[in-house]
Amino acid sequence: MWLQRDLTLKPHPRGFHLITLEVMTALPEIAGMRVGLLQVFIQHTSASLTVSENASPDVRRDFERYFNHAVPDGWTGFEHTLEGDDDMAAHIKASVLGASLSLPVRDGRLALGTWQGIYLCEHRDHGGSRRLLLTLMGEGR
Amino acid sequence: MWLQRDLTLKPHPRGFHLITLEVMTALPEIAGMRVGLLQVFIQHTSASLTVSENASPDVRRDFERYFNHAVPDGWTGFEHTLEGDDDMAAHIKASVLGASLSLPVRDGRLALGTWQGIYLCEHRDHGGSRRLLLTLMGEGR
Amino acid sequence: MWLQRDLTLKPHPRGFHLITLEVMTALPEIAGMRVGLLQVFIQHTSASLTVSENASPDVRRDFERYFNHAVPDGWTGFEHTLEGDDDMAAHIKASVLGASLSLPVRDGRLALGTWQGIYLCEHRDHGGSRRLLLTLMGEGR
Repeated sequence: MWLQRDLTLKPHPRGFHLITLEVMTALPEIAGMRVGLLQVFIQHTSASLTVSENASPDVRRDFERYFNHAVPDGWTGFEHTLEGDDDMAAHIKASVLGASLSLPVRDGRLALGTWQGIYLCEHRDHGGSRRLLLTLMGEGR
Repeated sequence: MWLQRDLTLKPHPRGFHLITLEVMTALPEIAGMRVGLLQVFIQHTSASLTVSENASPDVRRDFERYFNHAVPDGWTGFEHTLEGDDDMAAHIKASVLGASLSLPVRDGRLALGTWQGIYLCEHRDHGGSRRLLLTLMGEGR
Repeated sequence: MWLQRDLTLKPHPRGFHLITLEVMTALPEIAGMRVGLLQVFIQHTSASLTVSENASPDVRRDFERYFNHAVPDGWTGFEHTLEGDDDMAAHIKASVLGASLSLPVRDGRLALGTWQGIYLCEHRDHGGSRRLLLTLMGEGR
């Protein structure tokens, strides 16, 4: 079974945001699958996706603070500066974290660990809405 | 063909560890596949998976040393410190390296390059045992 | 439908290179697929793959400059130095960026965003030709 669906996320402020619920709600068909994979793909180069701790908002703030330190806006080595100080840093962060997630599906549920959630990583100051493409594959129950 | 299997890894000390053999041993069914994919997923947010050099133990020690330098325990910018100095750094490292690997299967074998092995990246001082979920999909021979 | 194909890339200089066209040309069968996934896997531990901006060459130069700064050749903490100053740094960069890409296929095309392209990230001074293994799975139109 293959199924593909667009999911457009409303604009989020720069930072790391839990979107597990939006992704699950967009794909009620997961409930009918015995075994499979969900691929979540973001069709942008200045925002990204990752899996991390789903409970403490301070973890998400620490992600933002750390990555701003590791890849500074307007870093002196950057040549590509026409689109703003946050643009090139956003491309780098997006590649470090990645544009796609592969998540296992088991017995009608995303088989995440207890503490795992899906993050939208918005690396731009005004990134606007973001398009995800969800691809679900597997065998029914 | 779809197949899913749990693999619980015994506790490993903090650092980078080759687990290629454990993964292959857990899935003898790979031998019967002509073409496919193996997804390896770690159900934790303070340990991760990567593919790198499978021969020299000093490469794995250099990974540990480099990542401790790049993401220091107890970094002054971290707000989430309740669970110990190694906790927030572990979440960051885990997202940089990633929670899942997709590995091609061809003619009954994992189609890794000659020098590629699967690493468990244990980012905590006392991470305990770690749960992997292996999802194998593809066509038989 | 499952299909697997080798793609050997000619030697590229150290740096970040757009290879979207090479990958698409190697798999004309994508045109016949309604929904699917393409997995691109690099069988090496000192080169990697990522998705980023496909228009401006200065973005790719900034990637090279940034990663050389973040993971310096011959970093004083490295123990594995026998294969040259660029070797251990290449392993680290390759794991940060990753050995595989999962790209959605929709209606006969790779469903990349407007500005997304596939990069070969060559981390060695003389990496030579690089082997990719392309695995395409999905349903026909």
